[in-house]
Amino acid sequence: MLTKCAVCEITFGRGNYDALSDHFIDTAGKSEPDHVMWLNKNITKKKCDARSLANYLRAYFSIDSSGLKGWMKKRFIERFYGDKPHPFVQALQRPSKPTLLGYVVEHQHFLRQWVRSCAYIVAKTDKVDVTLYELDNINTEFGGLGPDRPSHYELLLRMGESLGLPREDALTMRPLPDTLWAIKTWDEMGERDHWLETMAAMHPLELIANRNLKQDGATLSYFDPSILTGVEVTEATKNFLREGYEADVEHSEEAMDLIEKYSADLELSESVQATFMKSIDAFDRYLLARLERGKQFESS
Amino acid sequence: MLTKCAVCEITFGRGNYDALSDHFIDTAGKSEPDHVMWLNKNITKKKCDARSLANYLRAYFSIDSSGLKGWMKKRFIERFYGDKPHPFVQALQRPSKPTLLGYVVEHQHFLRQWVRSCAYIVAKTDKVDVTLYELDNINTEFGGLGPDRPSHYELLLRMGESLGLPREDALTMRPLPDTLWAIKTWDEMGERDHWLETMAAMHPLELIANRNLKQDGATLSYFDPSILTGVEVTEATKNFLREGYEADVEHSEEAMDLIEKYSADLELSESVQATFMKSIDAFDRYLLARLERGKQFESS
Repeated sequence: MLTKCAVCEITFGRGNYDALSDHFIDTAGKSEPDHVMWLNKNITKKKCDARSLANYLRAYFSIDSSGLKGWMKKRFIERFYGDKPHPFVQALQRPSKPTLLGYVVEHQHFLRQWVRSCAYIVAKTDKVDVTLYELDNINTEFGGLGPDRPSHYELLLRMGESLGLPREDALTMRPLPDTLWAIKTWDEMGERDHWLETMAAMHPLELIANRNLKQDGATLSYFDPSILTGVEVTEATKNFLREGYEADVEHSEEAMDLIEKYSADLELSESVQATFMKSIDAFDRYLLARLERGKQFESS
Repeated sequence: MLTKCAVCEITFGRGNYDALSDHFIDTAGKSEPDHVMWLNKNITKKKCDARSLANYLRAYFSIDSSGLKGWMKKRFIERFYGDKPHPFVQALQRPSKPTLLGYVVEHQHFLRQWVRSCAYIVAKTDKVDVTLYELDNINTEFGGLGPDRPSHYELLLRMGESLGLPREDALTMRPLPDTLWAIKTWDEMGERDHWLETMAAMHPLELIANRNLKQDGATLSYFDPSILTGVEVTEATKNFLREGYEADVEHSEEAMDLIEKYSADLELSESVQATFMKSIDAFDRYLLARLERGKQFESS
């Protein structure tokens, strides 16, 4: 029932974009860099008056006939797959060994948080379809489904091993500060926010590997799919990348259907949109941490 | 690092049973029925001075060579399987149809809360062995493990159907007030307490169906095992009872090993003991609600 700022925890009455505009102008006046950066990145780099800004914000958050799901996809593609694709996605097209090792080391921490965030949803929801969706997702990502269906977490560690990084070594490496910051952001959301916001924070992130995203306007796919049939990367790397490529289509689509349905039922669309935006900011920074870790492997 | 009251949320310095004794005497002076009842049920029905009460409490919570696990088993057996076994256990020995229907209707709500409580543990823990234990437990109890391994929740609903209660009807029946109160107690523990306390609140409850409990001094088993081979109950009832009878041995034993290990590592034994006691109080009341619901089926 509330509009939330997509940067801090301030809330406003539903649909009150005038108040949200005043809040951004107020924080810009105090030179709060997070708020200014958010406006520059998402709305406009030009100075404008309160009324124009309110109109920009209203337009930015307006949901058209493609629904909340379509809105989330559009914003996600803009951020990671637009004219200037995210640097990690660019690096992953035909990935170097250091890039993949950076992926392994940081992503193990992401997946541990993934389980915790999904568990918060299960702990708080009263909807059986959400519970069952999350259990399936947690099993696929972390728990595994028996010896023939290793979890993504297990496949990630095997990819590291195939590249010369023993799992004992990987498991003892602490996350980089940006990964730690992103994990903390998601953990606090899980603890504090409505379970539906946590769903919107986590599951649209699986769009990153959704191979159908080009149909929705993405300029690239997560990686060049020809590497799955070539000899450039190890078999364990192919197994890891293929799994995400296949599972994450269904995961992200099914979750966004649930988010759209319950956002309407519970009248939570605007909080969901703000939390989604906060989460893709965290994800953006986390993907850069994967690259940063990759650079450490290059120079070592 | 704290001693907690086993009735309210008051905490004391570690091992400070003098303060706990003063707290009970203080609340008894104010005629707080919960505290008086707890003392009468667990410690003594006689009036005594603060020093004697402190000694009783110290003895009650002292952990001998059988460890925290042995202490939990002892207290659980005293409460549910002692000289006067719990009325629900007595009724389940050779259960009537109304008793089983009461079980179905109330227990579906218990199992929904079970998933939420275990999910809080997964959301909060940083221990991988705990995460994997909980995921396995949630899958067994609620998610199911494919078509050949239906969940306990599914087996419960099938038991109801075999006794003439369609699942659509069962699923729309609200819990009785005592079940609702117990569920709220567990939900608040999950949200508020340390994940290890939540483990100690939930998993020792699986001792109720542990068929090895007679080796530890229980006067009865959960039900007369001959009903599993006889013709007195439906096949679906046997399937439900057999599953708990088999799974809950491993579930409760493995969980109590984890609780014992991490209580020592994290120095949380005393909080764990208090939360465990609160939880078995809630469970006691919840089992009575199953009987109460059974009586409604008798008269209908």
